Amino acid sequence: MTIPPGLLPEGFRDRLPPEAEAIARLVRRVLDTAASHGYERVSPPLAEFEAGLVGRLKSTRAQDLLRFVDPVSQRTMAVRPDITAQVGRIAATRMAHHPRPVRLAYGGSVLKLKATQLRPEREMMQVGAELIGLDSVAAAREIVSVAIEALGQAGVSGITLDFTLPNLVETLAQGSLATEPARISEIRALLDAKDAGGLAAAKAEAFLPLVEAAGPFDAAVARLRGFADGALVSRLDALEAIAAPLDAAVALTLDPTERHGFEYQSWFGFSLFAEGVSGEIGRGGSYTIVHEDGREEPAIGFSIYCDPLVDAGLAPHERQRLFVPVGTDPALAARMRAEGWVTVAALTDDDTPAAQICSHVLKDGAPVPA
Amino acid sequence: MTIPPGLLPEGFRDRLPPEAEAIARLVRRVLDTAASHGYERVSPPLAEFEAGLVGRLKSTRAQDLLRFVDPVSQRTMAVRPDITAQVGRIAATRMAHHPRPVRLAYGGSVLKLKATQLRPEREMMQVGAELIGLDSVAAAREIVSVAIEALGQAGVSGITLDFTLPNLVETLAQGSLATEPARISEIRALLDAKDAGGLAAAKAEAFLPLVEAAGPFDAAVARLRGFADGALVSRLDALEAIAAPLDAAVALTLDPTERHGFEYQSWFGFSLFAEGVSGEIGRGGSYTIVHEDGREEPAIGFSIYCDPLVDAGLAPHERQRLFVPVGTDPALAARMRAEGWVTVAALTDDDTPAAQICSHVLKDGAPVPA
Repeated sequence: MTIPPGLLPEGFRDRLPPEAEAIARLVRRVLDTAASHGYERVSPPLAEFEAGLVGRLKSTRAQDLLRFVDPVSQRTMAVRPDITAQVGRIAATRMAHHPRPVRLAYGGSVLKLKATQLRPEREMMQVGAELIGLDSVAAAREIVSVAIEALGQAGVSGITLDFTLPNLVETLAQGSLATEPARISEIRALLDAKDAGGLAAAKAEAFLPLVEAAGPFDAAVARLRGFADGALVSRLDALEAIAAPLDAAVALTLDPTERHGFEYQSWFGFSLFAEGVSGEIGRGGSYTIVHEDGREEPAIGFSIYCDPLVDAGLAPHERQRLFVPVGTDPALAARMRAEGWVTVAALTDDDTPAAQICSHVLKDGAPVPA
Repeated sequence: MTIPPGLLPEGFRDRLPPEAEAIARLVRRVLDTAASHGYERVSPPLAEFEAGLVGRLKSTRAQDLLRFVDPVSQRTMAVRPDITAQVGRIAATRMAHHPRPVRLAYGGSVLKLKATQLRPEREMMQVGAELIGLDSVAAAREIVSVAIEALGQAGVSGITLDFTLPNLVETLAQGSLATEPARISEIRALLDAKDAGGLAAAKAEAFLPLVEAAGPFDAAVARLRGFADGALVSRLDALEAIAAPLDAAVALTLDPTERHGFEYQSWFGFSLFAEGVSGEIGRGGSYTIVHEDGREEPAIGFSIYCDPLVDAGLAPHERQRLFVPVGTDPALAARMRAEGWVTVAALTDDDTPAAQICSHVLKDGAPVPA
């Protein structure tokens, strides 16, 4: 059986105009915003030794990677499923001696071996920024602000920011909600399932307020303040400090026990959503980078997933196309481009503005509606 | 044996600041230039079914591809070694019904399984534009002009454009230099090796002027005019028409029999070089796209290879970094960014302009040298 030439593997696709342009513009806007805050571009390779990738991807298993044997080294390589871990590697190796904090940004394709029901695509465009050397409230505030500003610059509206406190349960279990270590994973599973009945049955009612508090930010914080645990109070203070400078147009929620996908985050995490877009459009949080000598370094960052935004209709900036008839002085067309027009040159006498999807025609030295 | 965390497979590398920024800027400039001439962005997938890629890559063998078995389809997939063939596929399938000519542009990473001595890297950034539906002199003139303009916009200087006529030898062999078909490949090999003695020994002296003519454009054209073959004359006329509008700063050469890497090109091909950069920085030419119904369609395009340019020192545009002390009004920092500064916020009291590589500090509301 031959494969029809236009058929692509499941989860892979061609981005045509105008979607390809929309993705590229979104990436540019995020990187330009990050650059204006001092985040410098790094570009790790598409593929690495599998062992290196897996070691740093705490939530990725080797069997989820697209792997192949490198004919040069005879070792197994893998295509990256995520860029954050590569940036962490760079910070811990080639840029280990750079003064801290160091601000890095990146954008590129990532591949997954298998899709999920929620995310049918296996190739995705990831763009983001990482601040390495700090995970303080000031660092979190900067990362969240840059992410929100970047989305705004890219024309994304109706943003919801959902905060979470990834390692809160473990912190409480080792602190004021003293819990036998053996029971923590059971309680975690019940919290992940938001199973209030199960928590009661497991005599873990003390954790119930964490589940019940989830919702709009201010109300959730108010409810959790009643919980009055020292660690929790300091985290709520931190979240309020992070939220304070944000544009009032950003809706804020808090789900203190949400952990899915935040397995490698430390005290702080967040997910980004946009009106009309199904699923997350980005996420971020604080985490730890492990250096070669075992030293641990705090870091914080965010990633934006471009595909769901463009699939939901995020449009590129459309420039008007000007049809340039055969025989036009090239200098005149160049002048039109300098003025911001896209010029489309007729290369045959029978070409038309309609065929070239041009709104205007260059006539007697000036653009006129086609 | 464990692999040190910073070690990457041969031919793969991290691009750090400022090189990563330089590559990104080059890609942007080429795509922006192409866009201003009406070339719309397409973004084919990083990987496809191997059969589809190999069928369209006339000069690539399956064993040169980075292949893996897709767990979903159980078919062999491959990572693209080139984007041009993918754009051809798009033009012949999803965009088959779009009016011609259609102008498409692209940029992205390509992977090769093995490096060559000339090109040790196995991952490269390719950016380019394709004009599909025409391969006339007017089309070639546009493609060459856009390629040269794009390089100029990206700050590349000292450009040399080397023209070639990929299928000239076959055309002559079937025409005025009537040659037995069985001897053509022998003569091709001697021409590829520029082996004048061999041509004489093989009694193929008639082809010698083609070898001898190679060199600076005007002189080469003048020598070949003496050859006075109809097909050759019309091609020389075409080359002169393509060369005429080019900036005088571009050095022009002609090597009429050069074919290496032009195996799938038709009447017209060119290579781009830049002063101080070893090896090609780009190439292009006319070729044929085969549709599903067997119909053949002419096309022409160019690709720029970004890595050699950046390796040779093509610098990004450096923006000045402004250190913003702790406690500065965020609105003031935003104003500085709007004025074009990169602002780097101190997140701790002990951070310094030197650590953040800032040339200026924001003091009493204004930037002062650090």
